Amino acid sequence: MTFFGVQEAIAAQLVRTVAGAELDRAALEERFARAAWTGIAEPGDGAAGVLVGALGPSRALTALIDRVPPEQLGVEVSDTGGQLDTADLTEAVARWQPRLKSALALLALRQAGRYGMRLLIPGDPAWPDGLADLGPHGPLALWVRGDVSALDRLARSISLVGARAATGYGEHVAMEASAGLVDRGFAIVSGAAYGIDGMAHRAALASAGTTIAVLAGGLDRFYPSGHEALLTRIVASGLVVSEVPPGTPPTKWRFLQRNRLIAAVSCATVVLEAGWRSGSLNTAGHAAALGRPLGAVPGPVTSAASAGCHRLIREYDAVLVTNAAEMAELAGEPAPEPGGDPASRSAEDTRVLDALSERTPRAVDDIAQRSGLSLATVQSVLGALELDGAASLRERGWVRTT
Amino acid sequence: MTFFGVQEAIAAQLVRTVAGAELDRAALEERFARAAWTGIAEPGDGAAGVLVGALGPSRALTALIDRVPPEQLGVEVSDTGGQLDTADLTEAVARWQPRLKSALALLALRQAGRYGMRLLIPGDPAWPDGLADLGPHGPLALWVRGDVSALDRLARSISLVGARAATGYGEHVAMEASAGLVDRGFAIVSGAAYGIDGMAHRAALASAGTTIAVLAGGLDRFYPSGHEALLTRIVASGLVVSEVPPGTPPTKWRFLQRNRLIAAVSCATVVLEAGWRSGSLNTAGHAAALGRPLGAVPGPVTSAASAGCHRLIREYDAVLVTNAAEMAELAGEPAPEPGGDPASRSAEDTRVLDALSERTPRAVDDIAQRSGLSLATVQSVLGALELDGAASLRERGWVRTT
Repeated sequence: MTFFGVQEAIAAQLVRTVAGAELDRAALEERFARAAWTGIAEPGDGAAGVLVGALGPSRALTALIDRVPPEQLGVEVSDTGGQLDTADLTEAVARWQPRLKSALALLALRQAGRYGMRLLIPGDPAWPDGLADLGPHGPLALWVRGDVSALDRLARSISLVGARAATGYGEHVAMEASAGLVDRGFAIVSGAAYGIDGMAHRAALASAGTTIAVLAGGLDRFYPSGHEALLTRIVASGLVVSEVPPGTPPTKWRFLQRNRLIAAVSCATVVLEAGWRSGSLNTAGHAAALGRPLGAVPGPVTSAASAGCHRLIREYDAVLVTNAAEMAELAGEPAPEPGGDPASRSAEDTRVLDALSERTPRAVDDIAQRSGLSLATVQSVLGALELDGAASLRERGWVRTT
Repeated sequence: MTFFGVQEAIAAQLVRTVAGAELDRAALEERFARAAWTGIAEPGDGAAGVLVGALGPSRALTALIDRVPPEQLGVEVSDTGGQLDTADLTEAVARWQPRLKSALALLALRQAGRYGMRLLIPGDPAWPDGLADLGPHGPLALWVRGDVSALDRLARSISLVGARAATGYGEHVAMEASAGLVDRGFAIVSGAAYGIDGMAHRAALASAGTTIAVLAGGLDRFYPSGHEALLTRIVASGLVVSEVPPGTPPTKWRFLQRNRLIAAVSCATVVLEAGWRSGSLNTAGHAAALGRPLGAVPGPVTSAASAGCHRLIREYDAVLVTNAAEMAELAGEPAPEPGGDPASRSAEDTRVLDALSERTPRAVDDIAQRSGLSLATVQSVLGALELDGAASLRERGWVRTT
């Protein structure tokens, strides 16, 4: 274990801290290797996923450090069924090589410890089930801050996402949706951005619900900085999650990759407001690709901030949702029993009522002519309407009563 | 021809006036009979449609006047394949009988002549093709006021309907939609109600477009009375249509039946604003039942006036439409070529750009580490970005240029 061996005692202690449990040497090595991998491969790197899946994180890392020729790795990798040939692997090794420095992994672990982070890896009880659907593109580990048990609530969760440049309308809808879903026992997942995301988290906190923020950068420095206080509150009662190690700045690429996590961990994704080219459409695309239910909230067609939502409904088969109940239904909650409609009138009832006046009493033959119904039908309908209290017989004929 | 014979010369003259053409005796009789039928059977009366279809309007009327026993009529009717047995016909005759008065038909024709109406019957060149889809429930004749040639424009037409209790938003959208569709050569069909309907007609008139109003009552008295001036303007440049004869008040039943005509005559129906139980949903239901494309315009989920539109999209498979172009596409106009997207970046472009600073020049190996890409990839991407003008090489490294 060249990599791990460099400063073994320090590394082992750092890993123990973020693992939050005593581990044997093999487990420590695996956890250390996964921590290192999160800094070596960019989020969503399928080659890393296949290699780590095939060899295990520790052996894969050692092979990399030992500069095992890719064609030898490739032979082993092909056993996994992952789609990765020697050329792919050669290219992958070339992009991992510049980051292959043990100091980087140690620094990340040290920072993580300082901020009270935990490192979760596949197989941990709290590891979100939904991530399995990402296959080799799934995260190699997750850095988290806050209450890890929040992840247990993902079984009944929904992602609420939307534009940073939200309108008052969008924020209002986000607030109502988030609070309503919390009331129904849902955990709220979002990306902690300004606008819709922030409102979704805030409303969940205000309703004493569980909320999980998934960030694109390292958790040593919250982004956006204006949401430092909000994210600190989420750490206190929910969970903040990232797949990149501390010290990693959020980049456009990492935002796009972060969005796949938001879509994957929750039961359904709802876009509340989004411009025509909003990043939220990317999250929506991930949700659809993963087969997760996708909803979008409509808004005024005159509002650019709703154009992306309308596009999702028109072009991407998103379900139009207007309130928390419909969002819960999207996420798998059984639809409420349709409320009993007020007694609906038959066609003949309508036609007889149309022919009655409230003030002028009318004879049955007059009503028959006006309604275009036979005398017999009119008489029978009038009898039923009288029982209903909708018509009554006066001295000079029938009137409509209200 | 007992019925026609009563006051033959007068009747013939009245029919000639509303026919707008010289006709032989058989044609006069047919047209008179259809005019009479519009007053005898309520709109949508399938038994009348089957009987008139089987015997012809004149023979069917004579049989009714001569009180031919229904079981004898039934035998003949069964030949047509219409679903009408003797019991149905007995019931139908019983509801037609109270209205079987030649004076009523003569009065209607006299009124029609006075208001400059025309009577259209199936087979007339202007008869709308779409009505055939209503089968035996189609109108037996149409009373019209205005420019009959407006009906030729139905081949490229759209019905814009919606709530009477429209909001400012709904009226704005109706105006934009109607004007935009007129610009695309569409005729606008609606129901002349307050709110959305009125705005759709007005905007069409303002754009010098063709507009057709379909009313639920007789055309001697425009309903609603507040739209008297609007309907008079429609008569001047478009057409006002009803299937009931002059003197017939609009009733709830007739509004519901009128809605089927709006749906049937146009190429597509769009609901612009509608409450949860709006009558517009009835029009939408007819459009869907007739296989006509159905669209609905979304609005704020906080607006009760859009709840019906959202319901149509959620529950009735209506297509969400946000502007005139999308409505035109709904009505069969080929979708516009998708506009060229601004040169979209590849994943590697994005990652290299993410790793560049605008101010701090960076070396290729630094960029490789930041982006998680190989040196070779970074060098090749930088070359392309430099050609694009998105990156440039300074003395001390690469920077992003904007």
